Amino acid sequence: MFEATLEIRVEWGHCDPAQIVFNPNYFHWMESGLHWLFEAAGLSLTGLMEQDPDFRGAPLVRSDATFKAVARVGDLMSLTTRVVRWGGRSFDLGFRFAVDGTVVVEATQTRIWGRAVPGEAHRLQAVAVPDHIRDALSRPGRAVLRRAG
Amino acid sequence: MFEATLEIRVEWGHCDPAQIVFNPNYFHWMESGLHWLFEAAGLSLTGLMEQDPDFRGAPLVRSDATFKAVARVGDLMSLTTRVVRWGGRSFDLGFRFAVDGTVVVEATQTRIWGRAVPGEAHRLQAVAVPDHIRDALSRPGRAVLRRAG
Amino acid sequence: MFEATLEIRVEWGHCDPAQIVFNPNYFHWMESGLHWLFEAAGLSLTGLMEQDPDFRGAPLVRSDATFKAVARVGDLMSLTTRVVRWGGRSFDLGFRFAVDGTVVVEATQTRIWGRAVPGEAHRLQAVAVPDHIRDALSRPGRAVLRRAG
Amino acid sequence: MFEATLEIRVEWGHCDPAQIVFNPNYFHWMESGLHWLFEAAGLSLTGLMEQDPDFRGAPLVRSDATFKAVARVGDLMSLTTRVVRWGGRSFDLGFRFAVDGTVVVEATQTRIWGRAVPGEAHRLQAVAVPDHIRDALSRPGRAVLRRAG
Repeated sequence: MFEATLEIRVEWGHCDPAQIVFNPNYFHWMESGLHWLFEAAGLSLTGLMEQDPDFRGAPLVRSDATFKAVARVGDLMSLTTRVVRWGGRSFDLGFRFAVDGTVVVEATQTRIWGRAVPGEAHRLQAVAVPDHIRDALSRPGRAVLRRAG
Repeated sequence: MFEATLEIRVEWGHCDPAQIVFNPNYFHWMESGLHWLFEAAGLSLTGLMEQDPDFRGAPLVRSDATFKAVARVGDLMSLTTRVVRWGGRSFDLGFRFAVDGTVVVEATQTRIWGRAVPGEAHRLQAVAVPDHIRDALSRPGRAVLRRAG
Repeated sequence: MFEATLEIRVEWGHCDPAQIVFNPNYFHWMESGLHWLFEAAGLSLTGLMEQDPDFRGAPLVRSDATFKAVARVGDLMSLTTRVVRWGGRSFDLGFRFAVDGTVVVEATQTRIWGRAVPGEAHRLQAVAVPDHIRDALSRPGRAVLRRAG
Repeated sequence: MFEATLEIRVEWGHCDPAQIVFNPNYFHWMESGLHWLFEAAGLSLTGLMEQDPDFRGAPLVRSDATFKAVARVGDLMSLTTRVVRWGGRSFDLGFRFAVDGTVVVEATQTRIWGRAVPGEAHRLQAVAVPDHIRDALSRPGRAVLRRAG
């Protein structure tokens, strides 16, 4: 599967009074990981919404995460994201956060391909993941968004 | 087990362009649920830190969550938090978010009782959960933090 | 002017390694203050969007803030929000955060009444604030959303 | 003055139901701008804390911001941060967010150099900004943290 890696510098404000990363930040970063995976694969969520005004993104339906080590202010963390399972109307993402080769957090998420129910803008349904999305995320390859400062 | 319920009004800024709650907010609210559980049980994290400067809170080591329905701007959501398992140096929390009796999200988290390693302020260890904490969170009872506007 | 007060318990995760509130949290809470001001005055942003699908909320165009004291884990803070100036297509909000009668943060924000440009869904324009909004927020009165736990 | 520029891709979750960036995100990004300014200038907040356990970072005491244009999902935004004024115990930071050369947000912040009051770990005081900090941030130069994906 196509893999996308993102470098994250842990900042002062990511940390709590115990001076370790406050856990909800990892869930924000997983959203960034998904966003970067799509972007690196040449897929645009905005473009998808413009082509299909009823497209509603890839809402989360299940997640698990294991926190194995702590990360601290100043750590340079890598987050690697890839699809680990394809379903008909859903897919699983795998996330791995590491600092200097040590795994800090591992997580998986199940997401559906979301679309508004026609005529009922406030309801969501899972629809088939489009072939070109599946193809773009399934090809071998790797992209790294390195901090180039 | 002691149960603490928190009412949450879903605001504009909690929602994403699909007009549903952006999922990392649920992980922030689980932190609020834990905080309110302790407070409602008469336990103060600040007090615990003042009594023991090496106390480092209750860091997350594992979580899972299932997202069953969506919540939207204006929804009044309830979050109920309680301990669902006691280990020696850890415990599991159960969380249930509901809107009008419909479960929106269910989650569990495993937390350790964290303490700095003496002489190594930057390392954390799991230590025995103090008896008075276990007792306070194990007694039957229920507290509701209602929006009283 | 109508005033709405919100009680906020400062939690562990709101604080940074210096053990004081991490400043972006105040800007999140000001969004909550605005939301509660509208709700307490009987106005619903969701309802407004349903009546007028081109309504785009009240986007921020200017803000200033003064941070006078620090707040810490466990503090019970009050946030009082009210309109402090009406313009034709904009209004200013005043915010005051206090702990035990001591002002912690004071801020003002200028907001426009936002509407999509017809036929150009991606552009925003400032339009006249509807009379019933101005009336509801201008009448004398006070609402407090107390923590009722 | 030394200038540090950071590239930010606007993601789905940064945006609200009006499909524009939710304003508290700008205040989070200003924290990232400050963090990158220090890092690019070879200064480490962690290092400073290790050298002086009473150092408490650079807490915000005043801010203003003007929001001139909107940013949307997919926009590649640049944030440029630099010191715009030195006081004895404080300094002002200037921030400029732009998309494709159009200024989106401009802001300034006054920060103090914070230190715990000896013997009163819970109180903060403003102390003289160390000379090596002032020197590092005053020299001419420019660093860009480009998205290198």
